[in-house]
Amino acid sequence: MQDVSFKPIGVIHTPFANPEDAPIQPCFAGDSRGRLEIFPEYAAGLKDVSGFSHLILIYCFHRAEGYELLAKPFLDKDKKGIFATRFCKRPNAIGLSVVRLVGIEGNTLEVAEVDMLDGTPLLDIKPYVSRFDIREGVRDGWFKTASEWQKYEGKKAQS
Amino acid sequence: MQDVSFKPIGVIHTPFANPEDAPIQPCFAGDSRGRLEIFPEYAAGLKDVSGFSHLILIYCFHRAEGYELLAKPFLDKDKKGIFATRFCKRPNAIGLSVVRLVGIEGNTLEVAEVDMLDGTPLLDIKPYVSRFDIREGVRDGWFKTASEWQKYEGKKAQS
Repeated sequence: MQDVSFKPIGVIHTPFANPEDAPIQPCFAGDSRGRLEIFPEYAAGLKDVSGFSHLILIYCFHRAEGYELLAKPFLDKDKKGIFATRFCKRPNAIGLSVVRLVGIEGNTLEVAEVDMLDGTPLLDIKPYVSRFDIREGVRDGWFKTASEWQKYEGKKAQS
Repeated sequence: MQDVSFKPIGVIHTPFANPEDAPIQPCFAGDSRGRLEIFPEYAAGLKDVSGFSHLILIYCFHRAEGYELLAKPFLDKDKKGIFATRFCKRPNAIGLSVVRLVGIEGNTLEVAEVDMLDGTPLLDIKPYVSRFDIREGVRDGWFKTASEWQKYEGKKAQS
């Protein structure tokens, strides 16, 4: 199968210059604010986005090098299959986060609950839609009993 | 900013050979079944995946050609900004669907609620995790009052 190639539509600015500063997921990010700078040639595509409270960002883990098929995630002590984790060092370094939209001005979006590194290349924005994205009766696999939740719960982002 | 390139980790088999057969979102897909065939070199990364009820699939809209920044989505009569829709003809043809995991056998996953075309290149699998992916107080933008929900509600996939 052919490789696929994507061109960033913008860049994500956050307070997190280094991996050790960034929250491990938006739900641990408190009110951390970030800015999505959309390149001018794509700005017209932002019409109607302001009506949504949440957005799904798809981006590139640009600082992740290589990958492991079994990796130790932040939330547990044991290695897990990479496709059972959200860890960044994965075969395709694609990240996904649900963020809260705070406002839009021109081609800049202010968002909250960000967990990405500063300078992250943004590949796509999709509206978060209740009917499409919220599931009931979810079984959370190993996360349910993960040993390290405590370490991150209620902890503010460190920047 | 540099282009980024990804190598498919597998292929998605579904009953939908053509765009006009496919449901427009998993929530309209009823029990449509599909199979994710993971290439053998990535199979070890499937460890622990069986504990999750739902998976997030990130894939390539391989049949979408070109894009429009303002596009008419299936669910409404008016054009919307592409980043306020889930339409396939977007600047980066990246698709995202939440599917239900039915079972795993070797490097093949059986999933339900599929809305992709047969032969879709799979880029990533992420576990759907309640704390990460479910938001409260969601405002659904134009979807809330979209005129065409009726057309798709309760309609079975056409294959």
